[in-house]
Amino acid sequence: MRNDPRRRDLANYAWTLEVPTRFEDMDPNRHLNNVAVMRLFEETRVRFNWKLRASHPDIGHPHFLVGHASVDYLAEGEYPTLATMGYAVLSIGTSSFRVGKGLFQKGKCVALCDTVMVHRGETTPTAPIPPALRSALEAFPLKG
Amino acid sequence: MRNDPRRRDLANYAWTLEVPTRFEDMDPNRHLNNVAVMRLFEETRVRFNWKLRASHPDIGHPHFLVGHASVDYLAEGEYPTLATMGYAVLSIGTSSFRVGKGLFQKGKCVALCDTVMVHRGETTPTAPIPPALRSALEAFPLKG
Amino acid sequence: MRNDPRRRDLANYAWTLEVPTRFEDMDPNRHLNNVAVMRLFEETRVRFNWKLRASHPDIGHPHFLVGHASVDYLAEGEYPTLATMGYAVLSIGTSSFRVGKGLFQKGKCVALCDTVMVHRGETTPTAPIPPALRSALEAFPLKG
Amino acid sequence: MRNDPRRRDLANYAWTLEVPTRFEDMDPNRHLNNVAVMRLFEETRVRFNWKLRASHPDIGHPHFLVGHASVDYLAEGEYPTLATMGYAVLSIGTSSFRVGKGLFQKGKCVALCDTVMVHRGETTPTAPIPPALRSALEAFPLKG
Repeated sequence: MRNDPRRRDLANYAWTLEVPTRFEDMDPNRHLNNVAVMRLFEETRVRFNWKLRASHPDIGHPHFLVGHASVDYLAEGEYPTLATMGYAVLSIGTSSFRVGKGLFQKGKCVALCDTVMVHRGETTPTAPIPPALRSALEAFPLKG
Repeated sequence: MRNDPRRRDLANYAWTLEVPTRFEDMDPNRHLNNVAVMRLFEETRVRFNWKLRASHPDIGHPHFLVGHASVDYLAEGEYPTLATMGYAVLSIGTSSFRVGKGLFQKGKCVALCDTVMVHRGETTPTAPIPPALRSALEAFPLKG
Repeated sequence: MRNDPRRRDLANYAWTLEVPTRFEDMDPNRHLNNVAVMRLFEETRVRFNWKLRASHPDIGHPHFLVGHASVDYLAEGEYPTLATMGYAVLSIGTSSFRVGKGLFQKGKCVALCDTVMVHRGETTPTAPIPPALRSALEAFPLKG
Repeated sequence: MRNDPRRRDLANYAWTLEVPTRFEDMDPNRHLNNVAVMRLFEETRVRFNWKLRASHPDIGHPHFLVGHASVDYLAEGEYPTLATMGYAVLSIGTSSFRVGKGLFQKGKCVALCDTVMVHRGETTPTAPIPPALRSALEAFPLKG
Protein backbone atom coordinates (compact mmCIF):
# COMPACT_ATOMS: atom_id res chain seq x y z
CA MET A 1 0.00 0.00 0.00
CA ARG A 2 2.39 2.55 1.38
CA ASN A 3 4.72 2.09 -1.56
CA ASP A 4 2.17 2.52 -4.32
CA PRO A 5 1.95 6.28 -4.95
CA ARG A 6 -1.37 5.89 -6.76
CA ARG A 7 -2.96 4.92 -3.49
CA ARG A 8 -2.21 8.30 -1.92
CA ASP A 9 -4.28 10.25 -4.44
CA LEU A 10 -8.03 10.28 -3.88
CA ALA A 11 -8.60 10.82 -7.61
CA ASN A 12 -7.41 7.27 -8.31
CA TYR A 13 -10.22 5.59 -6.40
CA ALA A 14 -13.24 4.46 -8.38
CA TRP A 15 -15.75 5.34 -5.68
CA THR A 16 -15.67 7.87 -2.89
CA LEU A 17 -17.72 8.50 0.22
CA GLU A 18 -17.77 11.40 2.65
CA VAL A 19 -17.93 10.37 6.30
CA PRO A 20 -18.04 13.05 8.99
CA THR A 21 -15.70 12.21 11.81
CA ARG A 22 -17.15 11.97 15.31
CA PHE A 23 -15.87 13.05 18.71
CA GLU A 24 -15.88 9.36 19.64
CA ASP A 25 -13.22 8.74 16.96
CA MET A 26 -10.63 10.59 19.02
CA ASP A 27 -8.57 9.00 21.76
CA PRO A 28 -6.59 10.56 24.61
CA ASN A 29 -3.90 11.55 22.10
CA ARG A 30 -6.48 13.92 20.55
CA HIS A 31 -6.17 12.50 17.07
CA LEU A 32 -8.24 9.92 15.25
CA ASN A 33 -7.69 6.65 17.05
CA ASN A 34 -6.13 3.79 15.06
CA VAL A 35 -9.11 1.54 15.55
CA ALA A 36 -11.54 4.38 14.82
CA VAL A 37 -9.77 4.66 11.45
CA MET A 38 -10.72 1.01 10.90
CA ARG A 39 -14.32 1.97 11.74
CA LEU A 40 -14.26 4.55 8.95
CA PHE A 41 -12.95 1.92 6.54
CA GLU A 42 -15.67 -0.48 7.71
CA GLU A 43 -18.32 2.14 7.04
CA THR A 44 -16.94 2.64 3.53
CA ARG A 45 -17.04 -1.07 2.83
CA VAL A 46 -20.58 -1.52 4.10
CA ARG A 47 -21.91 1.51 2.21
CA PHE A 48 -20.23 0.28 -0.97
CA ASN A 49 -21.99 -3.06 -0.62
CA TRP A 50 -25.36 -1.33 -0.17
CA LYS A 51 -24.69 0.82 -3.21
CA LEU A 52 -23.59 -2.15 -5.32
CA ARG A 53 -26.69 -4.17 -4.51
CA ALA A 54 -28.96 -1.20 -5.16
CA SER A 55 -27.47 -0.50 -8.57
CA HIS A 56 -27.12 -4.17 -9.59
CA PRO A 57 -30.31 -6.04 -8.68
CA ASP A 58 -28.99 -9.00 -10.67
CA ILE A 59 -26.28 -9.79 -8.12
CA GLY A 60 -28.82 -10.59 -5.44
CA HIS A 61 -27.66 -10.29 -1.86
CA PRO A 62 -24.17 -11.81 -1.71
CA HIS A 63 -22.64 -12.39 1.71
CA PHE A 64 -19.00 -11.56 2.41
CA LEU A 65 -16.66 -12.03 5.32
CA VAL A 66 -13.51 -10.04 5.96
CA GLY A 67 -10.67 -12.56 5.81
CA HIS A 68 -7.78 -10.15 6.15
CA ALA A 69 -7.26 -6.45 6.72
CA SER A 70 -4.06 -4.39 6.64
CA VAL A 71 -3.69 -0.71 7.46
CA ASP A 72 -0.85 1.73 6.93
CA TYR A 73 -1.11 4.80 9.14
CA LEU A 74 0.52 7.67 7.26
CA ALA A 75 -0.47 10.81 9.15
CA GLU A 76 -2.48 11.88 12.16
CA GLY A 77 -6.17 12.16 11.46
CA GLU A 78 -8.18 14.93 13.06
CA TYR A 79 -11.61 15.80 14.36
CA PRO A 80 -13.98 17.44 13.39
CA THR A 81 -12.55 17.43 9.87
CA LEU A 82 -14.57 15.53 7.27
CA ALA A 83 -13.10 12.23 6.10
CA THR A 84 -13.27 11.47 2.41
CA MET A 85 -12.90 7.79 1.73
CA GLY A 86 -11.70 6.21 -1.50
CA TYR A 87 -12.67 2.68 -2.55
CA ALA A 88 -11.34 0.53 -5.39
CA VAL A 89 -11.40 -3.16 -6.25
CA LEU A 90 -7.75 -4.16 -6.62
CA SER A 91 -8.19 -7.73 -7.83
CA ILE A 92 -10.80 -10.46 -8.08
CA GLY A 93 -10.02 -14.11 -7.41
CA THR A 94 -12.14 -17.24 -7.63
CA SER A 95 -14.03 -16.76 -4.39
CA SER A 96 -12.59 -13.58 -2.91
CA PHE A 97 -11.61 -10.09 -3.95
CA ARG A 98 -9.16 -7.52 -2.68
CA VAL A 99 -10.26 -3.98 -1.85
CA GLY A 100 -8.03 -0.92 -1.60
CA LYS A 101 -9.25 1.99 0.48
CA GLY A 102 -7.86 5.35 1.48
CA LEU A 103 -8.81 7.88 4.15
CA PHE A 104 -8.22 11.50 3.18
CA GLN A 105 -8.62 14.72 5.15
CA LYS A 106 -8.14 18.12 3.50
CA GLY A 107 -6.66 16.31 0.52
CA LYS A 108 -4.01 14.55 2.57
CA CYS A 109 -3.82 10.77 2.79
CA VAL A 110 -4.15 9.78 6.45
CA ALA A 111 -4.35 5.99 6.12
CA LEU A 112 -4.54 3.17 3.58
CA CYS A 113 -6.36 -0.11 4.03
CA ASP A 114 -6.39 -3.35 2.07
CA THR A 115 -9.10 -5.88 2.77
CA VAL A 116 -9.62 -9.39 1.48
CA MET A 117 -13.34 -10.07 1.16
CA VAL A 118 -14.34 -13.73 1.09
CA HIS A 119 -17.52 -14.66 -0.75
CA ARG A 120 -19.52 -17.03 1.40
CA GLY A 121 -21.73 -19.79 0.12
CA GLU A 122 -25.10 -20.55 1.62
CA THR A 123 -23.81 -23.79 3.09
CA THR A 124 -20.08 -23.54 2.44
CA PRO A 125 -17.40 -21.25 3.92
CA THR A 126 -16.50 -19.97 0.46
CA ALA A 127 -18.24 -19.93 -2.91
CA PRO A 128 -17.14 -18.88 -6.40
CA ILE A 129 -17.93 -15.28 -7.32
CA PRO A 130 -20.70 -15.48 -9.94
CA PRO A 131 -20.22 -13.68 -13.31
CA ALA A 132 -22.73 -10.91 -12.58
CA LEU A 133 -21.01 -10.02 -9.31
CA ARG A 134 -17.58 -10.23 -10.93
CA SER A 135 -18.67 -7.90 -13.67
CA ALA A 136 -20.14 -5.44 -11.17
CA LEU A 137 -16.91 -5.40 -9.14
CA GLU A 138 -14.73 -4.93 -12.23
CA ALA A 139 -16.31 -1.53 -12.75
CA PHE A 140 -14.39 -0.14 -9.74
CA PRO A 141 -10.66 -0.48 -10.53
CA LEU A 142 -7.85 1.60 -9.10
CA LYS A 143 -6.84 4.22 -11.64
CA GLY A 144 -3.53 5.80 -12.52
CA MET B 1 -39.41 14.80 27.69
CA ARG B 2 -41.74 12.11 26.48
CA ASN B 3 -44.76 14.08 27.67
CA ASP B 4 -43.90 17.39 26.03
CA PRO B 5 -45.28 17.15 22.49
CA ARG B 6 -43.12 20.05 21.31
CA ARG B 7 -40.09 17.86 21.76
CA ARG B 8 -41.26 15.39 19.13
CA ASP B 9 -41.24 17.94 16.31
CA LEU B 10 -37.87 18.74 14.79
CA ALA B 11 -39.13 22.20 13.79
CA ASN B 12 -39.17 23.24 17.45
CA TYR B 13 -35.43 22.89 17.93
CA ALA B 14 -33.32 26.00 17.57
CA TRP B 15 -30.40 24.21 15.92
CA THR B 16 -30.20 21.07 13.86
CA LEU B 17 -27.41 18.82 12.68
CA GLU B 18 -27.38 15.95 10.21
CA VAL B 19 -25.37 12.94 11.35
CA PRO B 20 -25.08 9.91 9.06
CA THR B 21 -25.60 6.72 11.00
CA ARG B 22 -22.84 4.11 10.88
CA PHE B 23 -22.89 0.34 10.67
CA GLU B 24 -21.20 0.35 14.08
CA ASP B 25 -24.33 1.99 15.55
CA MET B 26 -26.31 -1.20 15.09
CA ASP B 27 -26.34 -4.04 17.59
CA PRO B 28 -27.38 -7.69 17.21
CA ASN B 29 -31.02 -6.58 17.24
CA ARG B 30 -30.33 -4.83 13.91
CA HIS B 31 -31.54 -1.45 15.07
CA LEU B 32 -29.65 1.53 16.42
CA ASN B 33 -28.21 0.46 19.74
CA ASN B 34 -29.34 2.40 22.83
CA VAL B 35 -25.83 3.53 23.67
CA ALA B 36 -25.11 4.38 20.04
CA VAL B 37 -28.08 6.74 20.27
CA MET B 38 -26.22 8.43 23.15
CA ARG B 39 -23.19 8.70 20.85
CA LEU B 40 -25.31 10.61 18.33
CA PHE B 41 -26.48 12.96 21.08
CA GLU B 42 -22.88 13.40 22.22
CA GLU B 43 -21.84 14.33 18.69
CA THR B 44 -24.64 16.91 18.55
CA ARG B 45 -23.55 18.44 21.83
CA VAL B 46 -19.88 18.63 20.86
CA ARG B 47 -20.62 20.10 17.42
CA PHE B 48 -22.91 22.69 19.01
CA ASN B 49 -20.11 23.77 21.33
CA TRP B 50 -17.70 24.14 18.39
CA LYS B 51 -20.27 26.15 16.49
CA LEU B 52 -21.02 28.39 19.49
CA ARG B 53 -17.38 29.19 20.09
CA ALA B 54 -16.78 29.86 16.41
CA SER B 55 -19.69 32.30 16.14
CA HIS B 56 -19.10 33.95 19.56
CA PRO B 57 -15.39 34.66 20.01
CA ASP B 58 -16.28 36.71 23.08
CA ILE B 59 -17.22 33.63 25.10
CA GLY B 60 -13.70 32.25 24.94
CA HIS B 61 -13.30 28.52 25.42
CA PRO B 62 -15.64 27.53 28.26
CA HIS B 63 -15.31 24.03 29.67
CA PHE B 64 -18.38 21.94 30.48
CA LEU B 65 -18.99 18.59 32.10
CA VAL B 66 -22.06 16.47 31.65
CA GLY B 67 -23.62 16.19 35.10
CA HIS B 68 -26.76 14.31 34.14
CA ALA B 69 -28.26 12.75 31.03
CA SER B 70 -31.70 11.22 30.47
CA VAL B 71 -32.95 9.50 27.36
CA ASP B 72 -36.43 8.42 26.29
CA TYR B 73 -36.36 5.79 23.57
CA LEU B 74 -39.52 6.25 21.49
CA ALA B 75 -39.01 4.15 18.38
CA GLU B 76 -36.45 1.86 16.79
CA GLY B 77 -33.74 3.73 14.96
CA GLU B 78 -32.36 2.32 11.74
CA TYR B 79 -29.24 2.14 9.61
CA PRO B 80 -28.23 3.48 7.08
CA THR B 81 -30.89 6.17 7.43
CA LEU B 82 -29.60 9.68 8.11
CA ALA B 83 -30.16 11.00 11.64
CA THR B 84 -31.29 14.59 11.99
CA MET B 85 -30.59 15.93 15.42
CA GLY B 86 -32.39 18.81 17.12
CA TYR B 87 -30.76 20.93 19.85
CA ALA B 88 -32.31 23.55 22.14
CA VAL B 89 -31.30 25.19 25.40
CA LEU B 90 -34.18 24.50 27.80
CA SER B 91 -33.04 26.58 30.77
CA ILE B 92 -29.98 28.35 32.14
CA GLY B 93 -29.08 28.32 35.82
CA THR B 94 -26.27 29.97 37.75
CA SER B 95 -23.53 27.59 36.75
CA SER B 96 -25.24 25.00 34.59
CA PHE B 97 -27.73 24.80 31.75
CA ARG B 98 -30.16 22.20 30.53
CA VAL B 99 -30.15 21.01 26.93
CA GLY B 100 -33.00 19.27 25.10
CA LYS B 101 -32.13 17.15 22.11
CA GLY B 102 -34.07 14.96 19.72
CA LEU B 103 -33.04 12.29 17.22
CA PHE B 104 -35.21 12.11 14.11
CA GLN B 105 -35.19 9.72 11.15
CA LYS B 106 -37.47 10.25 8.16
CA GLY B 107 -39.33 12.85 10.21
CA LYS B 108 -40.07 10.48 13.04
CA CYS B 109 -38.82 11.10 16.57
CA VAL B 110 -36.68 8.12 17.60
CA ALA B 111 -35.32 9.39 20.93
CA LEU B 112 -35.22 12.41 23.21
CA CYS B 113 -32.35 13.41 25.46
CA ASP B 114 -32.00 15.94 28.25
CA THR B 115 -28.56 16.85 29.48
CA VAL B 116 -27.41 19.03 32.34
CA MET B 117 -24.19 20.76 31.40
CA VAL B 118 -22.08 22.02 34.29
CA HIS B 119 -19.84 25.01 33.67
CA ARG B 120 -16.44 24.30 35.15
CA GLY B 121 -14.13 26.87 36.66
CA GLU B 122 -10.41 26.85 36.05
CA THR B 123 -9.73 25.81 39.62
CA THR B 124 -13.23 25.05 40.90
CA PRO B 125 -15.68 22.26 40.03
CA THR B 126 -18.31 24.79 39.00
CA ALA B 127 -18.25 28.44 37.99
CA PRO B 128 -20.99 30.98 37.24
CA ILE B 129 -21.97 31.26 33.59
CA PRO B 130 -20.66 34.65 32.43
CA PRO B 131 -23.08 37.12 30.76
CA ALA B 132 -21.66 36.70 27.24
CA LEU B 133 -22.06 32.92 27.39
CA ARG B 134 -25.55 33.24 28.89
CA SER B 135 -26.58 35.58 26.13
CA ALA B 136 -25.18 33.25 23.47
CA LEU B 137 -27.08 30.28 24.92
CA GLU B 138 -30.34 32.22 25.19
CA ALA B 139 -30.44 32.43 21.41
CA PHE B 140 -31.30 28.71 21.15
CA PRO B 141 -34.63 28.20 22.97
CA LEU B 142 -37.13 25.44 22.35
CA LYS B 143 -39.97 26.79 20.20
CA GLY B 144 -43.66 26.03 20.15
CA MET C 1 -30.53 8.70 42.15
CA ARG C 2 -28.02 11.29 43.23
CA ASN C 3 -30.08 12.08 46.32
CA ASP C 4 -30.49 8.53 47.58
CA PRO C 5 -27.38 7.83 49.68
CA ARG C 6 -27.98 4.07 49.52
CA ARG C 7 -27.18 4.19 45.83
CA ARG C 8 -23.62 5.36 46.45
CA ASP C 9 -22.64 2.26 48.42
CA LEU C 10 -21.80 -0.82 46.40
CA ALA C 11 -22.82 -3.04 49.32
CA ASN C 12 -26.47 -2.07 48.77
CA TYR C 13 -26.69 -3.62 45.33
CA ALA C 14 -28.08 -7.14 45.08
CA TRP C 15 -25.74 -8.21 42.29
CA THR C 16 -22.30 -7.04 41.28
CA LEU C 17 -20.09 -7.49 38.25
CA GLU C 18 -16.47 -6.62 37.63
CA VAL C 19 -15.80 -5.06 34.24
CA PRO C 20 -12.24 -4.11 33.28
CA THR C 21 -12.14 -0.70 31.69
CA ARG C 22 -10.63 -0.40 28.23
CA PHE C 23 -8.41 2.20 26.61
CA GLU C 24 -11.30 2.84 24.20
CA ASP C 25 -13.41 4.04 27.15
CA MET C 26 -11.30 7.16 27.50
CA ASP C 27 -11.88 10.31 25.50
CA PRO C 28 -9.58 13.28 24.82
CA ASN C 29 -10.18 14.49 28.38
CA ARG C 30 -8.32 11.36 29.57
CA HIS C 31 -11.12 10.14 31.78
CA LEU C 32 -13.89 7.63 31.15
CA ASN C 33 -16.11 9.13 28.49
CA ASN C 34 -19.75 9.78 29.43
CA VAL C 35 -21.08 7.47 26.76
CA ALA C 36 -18.50 4.82 27.59
CA VAL C 37 -19.96 4.87 31.10
CA MET C 38 -23.29 3.99 29.48
CA ARG C 39 -21.51 1.10 27.73
CA LEU C 40 -20.42 -0.25 31.09
CA PHE C 41 -24.00 -0.02 32.36
CA GLU C 42 -25.21 -1.76 29.20
CA GLU C 43 -22.74 -4.58 29.78
CA THR C 44 -24.02 -4.96 33.34
CA ARG C 45 -27.61 -5.15 32.17
CA VAL C 46 -26.92 -7.70 29.46
CA ARG C 47 -24.81 -9.91 31.75
CA PHE C 48 -27.53 -9.77 34.41
CA ASN C 49 -30.09 -10.98 31.88
CA TRP C 50 -27.83 -13.89 30.86
CA LYS C 51 -27.31 -14.78 34.49
CA LEU C 52 -31.04 -14.59 35.29
CA ARG C 53 -32.01 -16.85 32.41
CA ALA C 54 -29.28 -19.34 33.28
CA SER C 55 -30.35 -19.60 36.91
CA HIS C 56 -34.12 -19.52 36.20
CA PRO C 57 -34.91 -21.83 33.28
CA ASP C 58 -38.60 -21.38 34.08
CA ILE C 59 -38.63 -17.77 32.88
CA GLY C 60 -37.79 -18.80 29.34
CA HIS C 61 -36.17 -16.16 27.15
CA PRO C 62 -38.01 -12.89 27.84
CA HIS C 63 -37.30 -9.97 25.55
CA PHE C 64 -36.83 -6.44 26.93
CA LEU C 65 -36.37 -3.03 25.44
CA VAL C 66 -34.81 -0.06 27.18
CA GLY C 67 -37.56 2.57 27.37
CA HIS C 68 -35.72 5.14 29.43
CA ALA C 69 -32.26 5.64 30.87
CA SER C 70 -30.95 8.32 33.23
CA VAL C 71 -27.39 8.81 34.40
CA ASP C 72 -25.89 10.95 37.14
CA TYR C 73 -22.18 11.53 36.67
CA LEU C 74 -20.67 11.96 40.14
CA ALA C 75 -16.92 11.75 39.65
CA GLU C 76 -14.35 11.25 36.93
CA GLY C 77 -13.84 7.63 36.02
CA GLU C 78 -10.37 6.41 35.15
CA TYR C 79 -8.49 3.87 33.08
CA PRO C 80 -7.09 1.21 33.56
CA THR C 81 -8.83 0.91 36.94
CA LEU C 82 -11.30 -1.95 37.25
CA ALA C 83 -14.98 -0.97 37.29
CA THR C 84 -17.21 -2.73 39.78
CA MET C 85 -20.83 -2.48 38.81
CA GLY C 86 -23.83 -2.77 41.14
CA TYR C 87 -27.25 -3.89 39.95
CA ALA C 88 -30.59 -3.86 41.77
CA VAL C 89 -34.23 -4.07 40.75
CA LEU C 90 -35.86 -0.94 42.15
CA SER C 91 -39.50 -1.64 41.30
CA ILE C 92 -41.61 -3.93 39.15
CA GLY C 93 -44.71 -2.71 37.32
CA THR C 94 -47.25 -4.52 35.17
CA SER C 95 -45.14 -4.77 32.04
CA SER C 96 -41.91 -3.01 32.92
CA PHE C 97 -39.39 -2.81 35.74
CA ARG C 98 -36.94 -0.24 36.95
CA VAL C 99 -33.26 -1.04 37.42
CA GLY C 100 -30.77 0.88 39.56
CA LYS C 101 -27.10 0.55 38.71
CA GLY C 102 -23.90 2.04 40.04
CA LEU C 103 -20.36 2.24 38.69
CA PHE C 104 -17.65 2.12 41.34
CA GLN C 105 -13.87 2.46 41.09
CA LYS C 106 -11.61 1.94 44.11
CA GLY C 107 -14.75 2.02 46.25
CA LYS C 108 -15.86 5.41 44.98
CA CYS C 109 -19.15 5.90 43.18
CA VAL C 110 -18.42 7.31 39.73
CA ALA C 111 -21.91 7.22 38.20
CA LEU C 112 -25.46 6.06 38.83
CA CYS C 113 -27.90 4.85 36.22
CA ASP C 114 -31.62 4.14 36.28
CA THR C 115 -33.16 2.20 33.44
CA VAL C 116 -36.76 1.36 32.65
CA MET C 117 -36.92 -2.06 30.99
CA VAL C 118 -40.05 -2.75 28.97
CA HIS C 119 -41.16 -6.36 28.64
CA ARG C 120 -42.04 -7.03 25.03
CA GLY C 121 -44.72 -9.40 23.84
CA GLU C 122 -44.22 -11.69 20.89
CA THR C 123 -46.66 -9.68 18.81
CA THR C 124 -47.31 -6.66 21.04
CA PRO C 125 -45.06 -3.76 22.06
CA THR C 126 -45.54 -4.59 25.73
CA ALA C 127 -46.68 -7.65 27.64
CA PRO C 128 -47.40 -8.31 31.33
CA ILE C 129 -44.48 -9.65 33.33
CA PRO C 130 -45.34 -13.29 34.11
CA PRO C 131 -45.25 -14.48 37.75
CA ALA C 132 -42.08 -16.55 37.38
CA LEU C 133 -40.16 -13.61 35.95
CA ARG C 134 -41.56 -11.27 38.59
CA SER C 135 -40.51 -13.62 41.33
CA ALA C 136 -37.01 -13.95 39.86
CA LEU C 137 -36.62 -10.16 39.66
CA GLU C 138 -37.86 -9.63 43.21
CA ALA C 139 -34.80 -11.47 44.49
CA PHE C 140 -32.58 -8.50 43.58
CA PRO C 141 -33.81 -5.52 45.62
CA LEU C 142 -31.79 -2.49 46.64
CA LYS C 143 -30.70 -2.90 50.25
CA GLY C 144 -30.22 -0.38 53.03
CA MET D 1 0.65 -14.83 10.30
CA ARG D 2 -1.89 -17.27 9.03
CA ASN D 3 0.82 -19.54 7.70
CA ASP D 4 2.94 -19.71 10.83
CA PRO D 5 1.43 -22.53 12.92
CA ARG D 6 3.20 -21.30 16.06
CA ARG D 7 0.95 -18.27 16.02
CA ARG D 8 -2.18 -20.34 16.48
CA ASP D 9 -1.10 -21.75 19.83
CA LEU D 10 -1.57 -19.49 22.84
CA ALA D 11 1.28 -21.26 24.63
CA ASN D 12 3.76 -19.72 22.22
CA TYR D 13 3.07 -16.14 23.27
CA ALA D 14 5.37 -14.62 25.86
CA TRP D 15 2.62 -12.65 27.60
CA THR D 16 -1.10 -13.21 27.88
CA LEU D 17 -4.05 -11.13 28.99
CA GLU D 18 -7.67 -12.04 29.65
CA VAL D 19 -10.18 -9.56 28.27
CA PRO D 20 -13.89 -10.15 28.81
CA THR D 21 -15.83 -9.55 25.63
CA ARG D 22 -18.64 -6.99 25.74
CA PHE D 23 -22.08 -6.90 24.18
CA GLU D 24 -20.87 -3.86 22.23
CA ASP D 25 -18.29 -6.08 20.48
CA MET D 26 -21.03 -7.87 18.54
CA ASP D 27 -22.48 -6.59 15.30
CA PRO D 28 -25.73 -7.46 13.52
CA ASN D 29 -24.17 -10.76 12.44
CA ARG D 30 -24.14 -11.76 16.13
CA HIS D 31 -20.44 -12.51 16.23
CA LEU D 32 -17.50 -10.39 17.32
CA ASN D 33 -17.26 -7.55 14.84
CA ASN D 34 -14.03 -7.28 12.81
CA VAL D 35 -13.22 -3.86 14.16
CA ALA D 36 -14.13 -4.89 17.70
CA VAL D 37 -11.45 -7.57 17.31
CA MET D 38 -9.02 -4.73 16.61
CA ARG D 39 -10.22 -3.07 19.84
CA LEU D 40 -9.27 -6.22 21.76
CA PHE D 41 -5.83 -6.16 20.17
CA GLU D 42 -5.51 -2.47 21.02
CA GLU D 43 -6.35 -3.19 24.64
CA THR D 44 -3.67 -5.89 24.71
CA ARG D 45 -1.08 -3.54 23.30
CA VAL D 46 -1.90 -0.73 25.72
CA ARG D 47 -1.94 -3.02 28.76
CA PHE D 48 1.40 -4.50 27.70
CA ASN D 49 2.93 -1.02 27.56
CA TRP D 50 1.63 -0.22 31.06
CA LYS D 51 3.01 -3.48 32.35
CA LEU D 52 6.40 -2.94 30.70
CA ARG D 53 6.80 0.54 32.14
CA ALA D 54 5.74 -0.63 35.59
CA SER D 55 8.26 -3.49 35.64
CA HIS D 56 11.08 -1.53 33.96
CA PRO D 57 11.31 1.93 35.50
CA ASP D 58 14.60 2.42 33.63
CA ILE D 59 12.87 2.67 30.26
CA GLY D 60 11.03 5.80 31.28
CA HIS D 61 7.85 6.61 29.39
CA PRO D 62 8.53 5.85 25.72
CA HIS D 63 5.97 7.00 23.18
CA PHE D 64 4.93 4.76 20.29
CA LEU D 65 2.71 5.15 17.26
CA VAL D 66 1.12 2.33 15.34
CA GLY D 67 2.59 2.52 11.85
CA HIS D 68 1.00 -0.59 10.42
CA ALA D 69 -1.48 -3.23 11.51
CA SER D 70 -2.54 -6.47 9.78
CA VAL D 71 -5.22 -8.88 10.91
CA ASP D 72 -6.10 -12.39 9.78
CA TYR D 73 -9.61 -13.41 10.76
CA LEU D 74 -9.59 -17.18 11.25
CA ALA D 75 -12.86 -18.00 12.96
CA GLU D 76 -15.98 -16.31 14.28
CA GLY D 77 -15.53 -14.83 17.71
CA GLU D 78 -18.37 -14.97 20.19
CA TYR D 79 -19.93 -13.14 23.11
CA PRO D 80 -19.98 -13.47 26.14
CA THR D 81 -17.01 -15.84 25.92
CA LEU D 82 -13.80 -14.58 27.52
CA ALA D 83 -11.04 -13.57 25.12
CA THR D 84 -7.51 -14.63 25.98
CA MET D 85 -4.95 -12.55 24.18
CA GLY D 86 -1.38 -13.55 23.39
CA TYR D 87 1.41 -11.01 22.89
CA ALA D 88 4.95 -11.50 21.62
CA VAL D 89 7.66 -9.24 20.23
CA LEU D 90 8.53 -10.67 16.80
CA SER D 91 11.47 -8.44 15.90
CA ILE D 92 13.15 -5.21 16.92
CA GLY D 93 14.55 -2.74 14.40
CA THR D 94 16.42 0.51 14.82
CA SER D 95 13.44 2.65 15.71
CA SER D 96 10.48 0.31 15.51
CA PHE D 97 9.47 -3.18 16.59
CA ARG D 98 7.02 -5.74 15.34
CA VAL D 99 4.41 -7.27 17.63
CA GLY D 100 2.53 -10.52 17.07
CA LYS D 101 -0.78 -10.98 18.83
CA GLY D 102 -3.44 -13.64 18.89
CA LEU D 103 -7.05 -13.70 20.09
CA PHE D 104 -8.19 -17.03 21.52
CA GLN D 105 -11.58 -18.20 22.76
CA LYS D 106 -12.04 -21.61 24.38
CA GLY D 107 -8.56 -22.49 23.17
CA LYS D 108 -9.35 -21.74 19.54
CA CYS D 109 -7.48 -19.06 17.59
CA VAL D 110 -10.02 -16.51 16.37
CA ALA D 111 -7.69 -13.88 14.90
CA LEU D 112 -4.04 -12.94 14.52
CA CYS D 113 -2.64 -9.43 14.42
CA ASP D 114 0.75 -8.01 13.52
CA THR D 115 1.55 -4.46 14.45
CA VAL D 116 4.53 -2.27 13.68
CA MET D 117 5.17 0.08 16.58
CA VAL D 118 7.20 3.17 15.77
CA HIS D 119 9.24 4.73 18.55
CA ARG D 120 8.71 8.45 18.53
CA GLY D 121 11.28 11.03 19.49
CA GLU D 122 10.44 14.07 21.53
CA THR D 123 10.91 16.35 18.55
CA THR D 124 11.33 13.85 15.72
CA PRO D 125 8.85 11.45 14.09
CA THR D 126 11.08 8.49 14.91
CA ALA D 127 13.90 7.87 17.36
CA PRO D 128 16.27 4.94 17.93
CA ILE D 129 15.11 2.41 20.50
CA PRO D 130 17.44 2.85 23.50
CA PRO D 131 19.29 -0.20 24.89
CA ALA D 132 17.19 -0.50 28.07
CA LEU D 133 13.95 -0.56 26.07
CA ARG D 134 15.43 -3.01 23.57
CA SER D 135 16.50 -5.31 26.33
CA ALA D 136 13.07 -5.13 27.98
CA LEU D 137 11.34 -5.98 24.69
CA GLU D 138 13.69 -8.90 23.95
CA ALA D 139 12.29 -10.69 26.98
CA PHE D 140 9.00 -11.36 25.14
CA PRO D 141 9.83 -13.48 22.06
CA LEU D 142 7.51 -15.82 20.23
CA LYS D 143 8.23 -19.38 21.32
CA GLY D 144 8.10 -22.67 19.44
